[in-house]
Amino acid sequence: MKIYLAGPDVFLPDAVEIGRRKAAICAAHGLDGLYPLDNAIDLAASDASRQIFAANEAMMDAADAIIANLTPFRGAGADPGTVYELGYMAGRDKLCLAYSNDPAVYADRVGRFMDIANEDGRLIDAQGLTIEDFGLVDNLMMVHALELHGCPLVTPAEMPIDVWHDLAAFETCVRMAAARLLAT
Amino acid sequence: MKIYLAGPDVFLPDAVEIGRRKAAICAAHGLDGLYPLDNAIDLAASDASRQIFAANEAMMDAADAIIANLTPFRGAGADPGTVYELGYMAGRDKLCLAYSNDPAVYADRVGRFMDIANEDGRLIDAQGLTIEDFGLVDNLMMVHALELHGCPLVTPAEMPIDVWHDLAAFETCVRMAAARLLAT
Repeated sequence: MKIYLAGPDVFLPDAVEIGRRKAAICAAHGLDGLYPLDNAIDLAASDASRQIFAANEAMMDAADAIIANLTPFRGAGADPGTVYELGYMAGRDKLCLAYSNDPAVYADRVGRFMDIANEDGRLIDAQGLTIEDFGLVDNLMMVHALELHGCPLVTPAEMPIDVWHDLAAFETCVRMAAARLLAT
Repeated sequence: MKIYLAGPDVFLPDAVEIGRRKAAICAAHGLDGLYPLDNAIDLAASDASRQIFAANEAMMDAADAIIANLTPFRGAGADPGTVYELGYMAGRDKLCLAYSNDPAVYADRVGRFMDIANEDGRLIDAQGLTIEDFGLVDNLMMVHALELHGCPLVTPAEMPIDVWHDLAAFETCVRMAAARLLAT
């Protein structure tokens, strides 16, 4: 069974190495991890970004499940590119799993980046836009999609020191995926 | 034909009114706009967020197309909740359209929020993570998904003064959707 490994991991300085570590954890649980950087792309080509898209989509179509890294990326929420892939796999009726290495509630996390206020019972950000305040780790669409289309979001009890390299929550996802996909 | 109206518009102080304006534009072009806040949800219920999810997903399943507002939200990129919905509709093989009222290139926009640097030819953010630098308005997964699963991302020539209430780019999407869906 094939697992698409989605996440901003591809933007890390050691992006190739983290992909190898994730694939090795999958293999140890009897699963085949597919990592975007496994695709051979000519980055000098004028249509490199389109080639990356096409290769990633083909990989998703070939996979039985996705494990998405929803650890907050450049702000309070998950990486939109990764979230697109989670939505695509849910739409395709594939098994959806994800983890976030920051277990804080979304509304609290927004407060780390900007002033927030309570206006007539509505929690708002610095632009006056409502902050989702359901006690969830991220936007309700992702959180509940995981419950319905796979397994609930995995978070550690405490944020690890290195959120981009700690793979304990990822391995929990792999274990759950194996239990679901390899059940006889 | 039904169009699902996705976007962080639901977080605006006048969220209901903007939904009415969008639905009216759809109606003027012969289309039926479905807006998340049309769903009657008991926000005091303990499972309110799950009810919202289920109602949104049912609305997407009932729709023929999506028009997603990808205007940057609390940072350099699009709202992850909206992007989840775009991915879901692409996965369901629905017609996908989107607009962003900020036409700037993503890599330039990241520089508004944090120091960025060029390290050995790799553009990096303050955390050392690679910044996608293909001259696109947002993450390549959304940008190319639109080309493949619908119509290219619509952006205005210049950012309007009120990015949350200017609906010119939205109306361009509605026109394109009508041309595709109502063609005989």
